[in-house]
Amino acid sequence: MIQKLIDKIQKTNAPIVVGLDPMLSYIPAQIQKKAFGEYGETLKGAAEAIWQFNKEIIDKTYDLIPAVKPQIAMYEQFGIEGLMAFKKTVDYCKEKDLVVIGDVKRGDIGSTSAAYAVGHLGTVKVGEKEYAPFDEDFATVNPYLGTDGIKPFVDVCKEHKKGIFVLVKTSNPSSGEFQDRLVDGRPLYELVGEQVAKWGEDCMGETYSYVGAVVGATYPEQGKILRKIMPKSFILVPGYGAQGGKGADLVHFFNEDGLGAIVNSSRGIIAAWKQEKYAGYGEANFAEASRAAVEDMIQDISTALQNR
Amino acid sequence: MIQKLIDKIQKTNAPIVVGLDPMLSYIPAQIQKKAFGEYGETLKGAAEAIWQFNKEIIDKTYDLIPAVKPQIAMYEQFGIEGLMAFKKTVDYCKEKDLVVIGDVKRGDIGSTSAAYAVGHLGTVKVGEKEYAPFDEDFATVNPYLGTDGIKPFVDVCKEHKKGIFVLVKTSNPSSGEFQDRLVDGRPLYELVGEQVAKWGEDCMGETYSYVGAVVGATYPEQGKILRKIMPKSFILVPGYGAQGGKGADLVHFFNEDGLGAIVNSSRGIIAAWKQEKYAGYGEANFAEASRAAVEDMIQDISTALQNR
Repeated sequence: MIQKLIDKIQKTNAPIVVGLDPMLSYIPAQIQKKAFGEYGETLKGAAEAIWQFNKEIIDKTYDLIPAVKPQIAMYEQFGIEGLMAFKKTVDYCKEKDLVVIGDVKRGDIGSTSAAYAVGHLGTVKVGEKEYAPFDEDFATVNPYLGTDGIKPFVDVCKEHKKGIFVLVKTSNPSSGEFQDRLVDGRPLYELVGEQVAKWGEDCMGETYSYVGAVVGATYPEQGKILRKIMPKSFILVPGYGAQGGKGADLVHFFNEDGLGAIVNSSRGIIAAWKQEKYAGYGEANFAEASRAAVEDMIQDISTALQNR
Repeated sequence: MIQKLIDKIQKTNAPIVVGLDPMLSYIPAQIQKKAFGEYGETLKGAAEAIWQFNKEIIDKTYDLIPAVKPQIAMYEQFGIEGLMAFKKTVDYCKEKDLVVIGDVKRGDIGSTSAAYAVGHLGTVKVGEKEYAPFDEDFATVNPYLGTDGIKPFVDVCKEHKKGIFVLVKTSNPSSGEFQDRLVDGRPLYELVGEQVAKWGEDCMGETYSYVGAVVGATYPEQGKILRKIMPKSFILVPGYGAQGGKGADLVHFFNEDGLGAIVNSSRGIIAAWKQEKYAGYGEANFAEASRAAVEDMIQDISTALQNR
């Protein structure tokens, strides 16, 4: 799957991923009205609104991008109905041949981590039958529990050619609270980065490993160091756009081959119609605004990479 | 909710929690056969088997215990159908007046953490209506992302009188990989413990805060220190029984008031019928075996607490 991601990045010339993190406040009134008209102001109504919103954005952007990253929390908040919309979104993106990064940030130990891994990336056995319940291509994983928590994911990745992105240095303001603490004079995130490189060693694709890392666009200096610590790992970079990251900040997340990073934007794309810059599209054409925002993001990053 | 947990512990005289972490291999053949007969060897069949298994264990133990801790991964691995069994289990336990600790180990940042918090502990708005999608009483939360990840949970806890248990020192063998790393001469888990105490300061119940911690029974020395660092936090202690922790190891997780800790056992209770010790109950009476294992666990911990 890491090779498919690379192929798609090279084909689209767009090392970007669209974060499908729908909040009801991003969803145009006409879509909410229709969904609530059909199902009432219920969890099912909310899930339907999310799904219709996603579908239109996917339809208008899938040819420009290699991958999407649905944030499961935004679906899980609406309970079972919301999770059904998550599943529908994953399936639809795969129909459109997009690589799907499930932003699930799961992490537990032993058989529990294995359960998350088979549920999201692998297959689960029921009697003689086997099922792939969520079947994302990649999942994000939390490293706090150490190798016991990661190894079951790596095993499933090897078997099913899927991948993970391990949280290393997250994009939020307080990420340093624990991640930056110095251990033998070096920040904790560097130690986590070293483990990411090690976990990836025995599950390599052609040029990159199945084990990637999450490093926030908001921390470009740290990204530069982590790029060197994990030369064979793809870095998933959140925090572009709405969180403050710019194309020029991102060049050091990439390797010399122009690969090795994929930059996420969520709100900046899916809620583009609410920005002054794209207001001209109007609420009804929200997905066209998203397409324009994708084109601008690709342009911004390409320019930055050419000028480095 | 922390007060309800305390009241129930005092009423049952049992500072324990039963981990509802069903694996298909724990579920007696007759239950699986019936479920698969009805729904086939499908995800729905697996979910039905889990639910029937849980129900019987709850029915046979609920009067002895204050709380249960369903591990969501074991349900999530069966996709949407599995998550419906999770929800059914939560609802049924609440009907039985048990305190429900959702072992979800979620953790993200800002609005994303808020989405998890409302989905699991609070209420979500859809138009003019409000819903409590999963409605557990407590949730476990991962601290790696810092205060940005925890604060939204704390806010929801305050509003809805719910609680969280933050992972501090987990029970698994490799938990030390990052958690034990020395920061200014002190292990990282102590720093996390200090934050737990701080996060809990402004959301106190009568005697304990809504913000608890997870510290593994397998690390009694660390538990002793963490007990002092977080005097007002309940400690949820996994790792008893199957993972190796014994009653005598646990005394220092408790405060002088005999409170402050709640000890989890999962496999040791729900799969008791597979142990030699309880084999006499036979597969058909698996839930009676679970009841006996609960009684033994209460006895073991009571004795240890009396002898300290």
